[in-house]
Amino acid sequence: MAHKKELRIGLIGTGLMARTHTNGYKRSGDFFPELEYRPVLKTVCARTEEKVKAFAEQWGFESYETDWKAVIARDDIDAVDICTPNDMHADIAIAAAEAGKMVLCEKPLARSVAEAQPMVDAIKKAGVANTVFYNYRRIPAVTLIKQIVDSGKLGKIFHYRANFLQDWTISPELPQGGEALWRLDAEAAGSGVTGDLLAHCIDSAMWLNGVIKDVSAVTETFIKERVHQGTGEVQKVTIDDACIFHCHFENGALGVFEATRYARGHKALNTLEINGEHASLRWDLHDMNYLEMYDHADDAIVRGWKRILITDSDQPYMDKWWIPGTSIGYEHSFVHQVADFLKSLETGEPCEPSFENALMTQKVCEAVINSANSKSWKDTGLV
Amino acid sequence: MAHKKELRIGLIGTGLMARTHTNGYKRSGDFFPELEYRPVLKTVCARTEEKVKAFAEQWGFESYETDWKAVIARDDIDAVDICTPNDMHADIAIAAAEAGKMVLCEKPLARSVAEAQPMVDAIKKAGVANTVFYNYRRIPAVTLIKQIVDSGKLGKIFHYRANFLQDWTISPELPQGGEALWRLDAEAAGSGVTGDLLAHCIDSAMWLNGVIKDVSAVTETFIKERVHQGTGEVQKVTIDDACIFHCHFENGALGVFEATRYARGHKALNTLEINGEHASLRWDLHDMNYLEMYDHADDAIVRGWKRILITDSDQPYMDKWWIPGTSIGYEHSFVHQVADFLKSLETGEPCEPSFENALMTQKVCEAVINSANSKSWKDTGLV
Amino acid sequence: MAHKKELRIGLIGTGLMARTHTNGYKRSGDFFPELEYRPVLKTVCARTEEKVKAFAEQWGFESYETDWKAVIARDDIDAVDICTPNDMHADIAIAAAEAGKMVLCEKPLARSVAEAQPMVDAIKKAGVANTVFYNYRRIPAVTLIKQIVDSGKLGKIFHYRANFLQDWTISPELPQGGEALWRLDAEAAGSGVTGDLLAHCIDSAMWLNGVIKDVSAVTETFIKERVHQGTGEVQKVTIDDACIFHCHFENGALGVFEATRYARGHKALNTLEINGEHASLRWDLHDMNYLEMYDHADDAIVRGWKRILITDSDQPYMDKWWIPGTSIGYEHSFVHQVADFLKSLETGEPCEPSFENALMTQKVCEAVINSANSKSWKDTGLV
Amino acid sequence: MAHKKELRIGLIGTGLMARTHTNGYKRSGDFFPELEYRPVLKTVCARTEEKVKAFAEQWGFESYETDWKAVIARDDIDAVDICTPNDMHADIAIAAAEAGKMVLCEKPLARSVAEAQPMVDAIKKAGVANTVFYNYRRIPAVTLIKQIVDSGKLGKIFHYRANFLQDWTISPELPQGGEALWRLDAEAAGSGVTGDLLAHCIDSAMWLNGVIKDVSAVTETFIKERVHQGTGEVQKVTIDDACIFHCHFENGALGVFEATRYARGHKALNTLEINGEHASLRWDLHDMNYLEMYDHADDAIVRGWKRILITDSDQPYMDKWWIPGTSIGYEHSFVHQVADFLKSLETGEPCEPSFENALMTQKVCEAVINSANSKSWKDTGLV
Repeated sequence: MAHKKELRIGLIGTGLMARTHTNGYKRSGDFFPELEYRPVLKTVCARTEEKVKAFAEQWGFESYETDWKAVIARDDIDAVDICTPNDMHADIAIAAAEAGKMVLCEKPLARSVAEAQPMVDAIKKAGVANTVFYNYRRIPAVTLIKQIVDSGKLGKIFHYRANFLQDWTISPELPQGGEALWRLDAEAAGSGVTGDLLAHCIDSAMWLNGVIKDVSAVTETFIKERVHQGTGEVQKVTIDDACIFHCHFENGALGVFEATRYARGHKALNTLEINGEHASLRWDLHDMNYLEMYDHADDAIVRGWKRILITDSDQPYMDKWWIPGTSIGYEHSFVHQVADFLKSLETGEPCEPSFENALMTQKVCEAVINSANSKSWKDTGLV
Repeated sequence: MAHKKELRIGLIGTGLMARTHTNGYKRSGDFFPELEYRPVLKTVCARTEEKVKAFAEQWGFESYETDWKAVIARDDIDAVDICTPNDMHADIAIAAAEAGKMVLCEKPLARSVAEAQPMVDAIKKAGVANTVFYNYRRIPAVTLIKQIVDSGKLGKIFHYRANFLQDWTISPELPQGGEALWRLDAEAAGSGVTGDLLAHCIDSAMWLNGVIKDVSAVTETFIKERVHQGTGEVQKVTIDDACIFHCHFENGALGVFEATRYARGHKALNTLEINGEHASLRWDLHDMNYLEMYDHADDAIVRGWKRILITDSDQPYMDKWWIPGTSIGYEHSFVHQVADFLKSLETGEPCEPSFENALMTQKVCEAVINSANSKSWKDTGLV
Repeated sequence: MAHKKELRIGLIGTGLMARTHTNGYKRSGDFFPELEYRPVLKTVCARTEEKVKAFAEQWGFESYETDWKAVIARDDIDAVDICTPNDMHADIAIAAAEAGKMVLCEKPLARSVAEAQPMVDAIKKAGVANTVFYNYRRIPAVTLIKQIVDSGKLGKIFHYRANFLQDWTISPELPQGGEALWRLDAEAAGSGVTGDLLAHCIDSAMWLNGVIKDVSAVTETFIKERVHQGTGEVQKVTIDDACIFHCHFENGALGVFEATRYARGHKALNTLEINGEHASLRWDLHDMNYLEMYDHADDAIVRGWKRILITDSDQPYMDKWWIPGTSIGYEHSFVHQVADFLKSLETGEPCEPSFENALMTQKVCEAVINSANSKSWKDTGLV
Repeated sequence: MAHKKELRIGLIGTGLMARTHTNGYKRSGDFFPELEYRPVLKTVCARTEEKVKAFAEQWGFESYETDWKAVIARDDIDAVDICTPNDMHADIAIAAAEAGKMVLCEKPLARSVAEAQPMVDAIKKAGVANTVFYNYRRIPAVTLIKQIVDSGKLGKIFHYRANFLQDWTISPELPQGGEALWRLDAEAAGSGVTGDLLAHCIDSAMWLNGVIKDVSAVTETFIKERVHQGTGEVQKVTIDDACIFHCHFENGALGVFEATRYARGHKALNTLEINGEHASLRWDLHDMNYLEMYDHADDAIVRGWKRILITDSDQPYMDKWWIPGTSIGYEHSFVHQVADFLKSLETGEPCEPSFENALMTQKVCEAVINSANSKSWKDTGLV
């Protein structure tokens, strides 16, 4: 593999997403051998030395750092990958772009549009390669939905609906904030389920069905106070525990979205369904290797919802893996995104979702929160 | 059976619902032999003699009428059953009540709250037995949900969601109005999917989860003009083709509801799901003999959604039918409602949903339409 | 309805099947109004007067008898319907045929081929209309399978598999024999699951896929002794609790069949699957309104198993019932068989499965039992 | 990771299984960081230099060989992993064991019992660590089944049923033999679906439910002649295209097994179901992250089949991967087997299935083939 071009990675963060991204870098070479670029795990960064050292050893990074600025300052880093809590995305991304590094960023782009816009500006100004890990686009079934929708098979789209349902915060004993629980802290996360879960649904929706024009939302915080893990004190919960909104797409379709962490029995039930004039499609993450399709063009007496197992080599990405009938998992969506990013370096095409795409999702999320707070419809500003 | 008390029925209408109700009357004796009352198919009424005569012969009515006032005027009628288009419900119900007849009415109660309120007043004043056919309460799986919810098993309720998805009006060639298509005519129906489909979901929801406090809705009319079957002319479509709303329940739960006739691939997909602190339940009409349940009290390593086949004799109504594993159908919900109505005559207890219950659903429907029209939240007035 | 021809029924038996058949007679007029013949519930017969009197009253029979020979002797009976335990089928059927009555018989035809052959002979000699209630042929999804198979859509058939799984005899406390439990008594039933459950699977299989040539079987009796309900004594269990066999069909397909009453969690899981060169079909009774189909002719990237909801008016029998999306139940298969029998009286065509068809199934059942007993392959004698 | 003990691997083969094993070696370090041993990809071997060189480069082997004897002769190899066609397993395994190498072998162990027995003898004599890749034991849902069965939760077992259904050889145009198609060549494979597919089912079955005592089988070869890829000539097909058998387990349960490559619509439908007195379990590879369970101990009115998503950290192996709701894939079963093998080197416990376990499966396969050929029951010799 000596002849490959190196893409030297500096990873910031050591949490769950640091693991999925790192796995993506390591697998891409094994399963996408045709790519010109080969990721090299140059360095990983976190504040706590003990933790980052262990992470570096486990995953095979060549070195580690405890200050993200040091990563950006290094000459031997081509790309900075941001896997920190949301409140650090902007500072790191802007500094990295200004230093001429490529920037890969975990979603959501930032805590707010105000924070995200300068990130996009910096990226554009620097002209650096960039991508945001809205990884569900790279689940093969979802990628196939994109192909089918783009083929025109569905005809006019009437409805789009999406859920992201979890149940892990139902217990009032669960603390908020700090290690592993920063997603429950609005200061660190920006919002609750809107930025964490609905952002995924919105990214998929606008990729598949075009931009969202306006929204009407409601949010709820079921548990009003929790102990903060950092301070040890009972504090007001400021995130949204649940969020529902309906909307108009630019193409005239109606949309309805719901996310919550209080849906007992659902773990990561990310779903989507599109109803078109001629056909409908649906998918969910708990059965991620299946795509469901209803085709009105079928013979009338045998029309029905087809459960399509996406494991054949002519289906997206699946020529890279095993044999028909043998499935892949969640982590593979990150491998695919890394592979597509590497490919984009060859072709010079952007690797979507770009920072610019992610800013659009940020705008919808912000309109959703504003709508819920004001109890009124809000334009997204995208049309 | 000579010793049974007779309940002499005068049925108004000969459409689909006239068939389901009549079948209910005829089956109740076969399968609920313990009931004191026995329905007698005294007369059926419709404007077209040829049609009503054929209906009477097919189903075994003793006579027929072509003027509903004649039915009410007859001394040998104990109960009037209203299966007409919605625009005739009020006149018939009020006249029947004033004549001292029991009144059974197909849903929705009326086209508007303004029309429904006098119906309730008349019923109350007359003190006559009454019921409205929100039949889905009597699907055994739904009845069992009610029992489980009432047992407190679910704990605090966080979420309620319901859909009623169809696809039968997608073709722009479909005319509106007249025979079999009056549901597409706002003048006859009052509204589109809101009164036809969401009313069912709302009735179930408030039965299972308490009253809805306020709503925020959106409606859409996808096909703007259709030929009217009566006039033969292209006219503006005035019904709602689709309706989505979110809401607060009085108990603090968030609700989200959607109905449409443009969801390609769904025929009568009436669904409901309740997420509680300790357990969740869901059901849909396409798999009507199944109840799905997730119980957090199960051993942690084997928690999951259980698909419960409702065919055992210890489950609601099922001691009346066949053997474990053998299912019943849609029509049985009407048989059960008739049986429960007959039973209520024995006990003197009201047979819910009563006209009063149905008025509450009407108020929610009206708030939904008003919310959509004004693009703002509306109180239902029920809290 | 005075102009209809009467088919005057004498029903022998008051158990579960007496109820399903009677319901069939009563519903056929309501839902198949075009038929020339109208069943009249003339008399019902059982040994215990109290029980038969109650049955007659509940279901509306004009009279009752306590001796089946009296039924056959009556001039006002056109057709005798046999719903007794299996050990009485032969005597009644032969006597009825000799008296020139039409004969409808619950399955299996008899306890053995030796018993069944004279029944067929008597029927043929008398030339009377006849049918055997292998009712699952008339589940709309199964009828549709027949149409699809006959169209040639599947190409060469490679595999046929069928199960009938129950769990109601797992408890060793359950007695055998007598009222409601005669199916556990080999003397009354002929065999255990082979005649009770597999006979259904075999009838469907040979209807859909042609005759079975040879079989290799195993049976098991898990509980060796039970209290007999009649004698109150512990006696050896002589029925087969479970039976598995594989076989060759005349068309070259391999078959595998299994029935048991010891499959914890399955109530009446009657299943079938056919794998053909170009397409496959499957169905099960627990989801009886669905047909599943895989069609290799679909576009390669969207091939999958389609779940077809059988509720549309262009699907078998469904123009008689409700609207798309609203399902029917187990009992409807009997209504359909009655309707088809009435229709056969108009057309003069036999109403299959005839006694002759049922004898073929009997021969397979007997080969299965013989194979299990001898631990060797047995020819069915049908090829 | 410098402090880890090395396990230096010499891999023979570059086909599909060479890829799954190699991926297992590479992932085990990332996800099982606590293990003392670290696999080192020392060398890979195949006859064609071009192919083996490319494989070595893609996957990061330090070297390659073109003669398997050279691998065994190398001092820097601790363990030989055999991923060749079945006809080479015995020679390599015996030579490796005699050279004191650990031996890991892809299943089935050999083409026959006669070939497999000396392999077990050699392994035992050498006293080397060994394992056979019946990988499905390490699917978390299957591992959990083992735990539940061993807990006694199911009570007495009545039934075991398993399928392995594929459809990739339906076309008569498909050639047999040679590269990628040696599984269709009895000379190379030993048998058809029996050794390729049923062997997996049998290994799982005997692990979960104890040994199989005797079998009665049927096999079929649907396509009688195919072009051989090596010779280019039309030759007789000598493998079994399909195989069905029923059997007795030592514990008294009945078993039924079926495998085929002619089940249109099924890709790798490896299924199993166990019916016990108190509970039942089922699983299939197409929904590999789910376990289904029916528990008779549940409240009577809410008994049903539970669909358990196996993604929680308290379920087998899942503490190593992602978060609740996010699934893993087929390849992970090999990662788990590698990790368990590495662990066994620490503990000194055998890593099952051992060569000895695999010999038992071989004996059942051989009894199955003999039974089919002789059309008679055959003892497995295991009881």
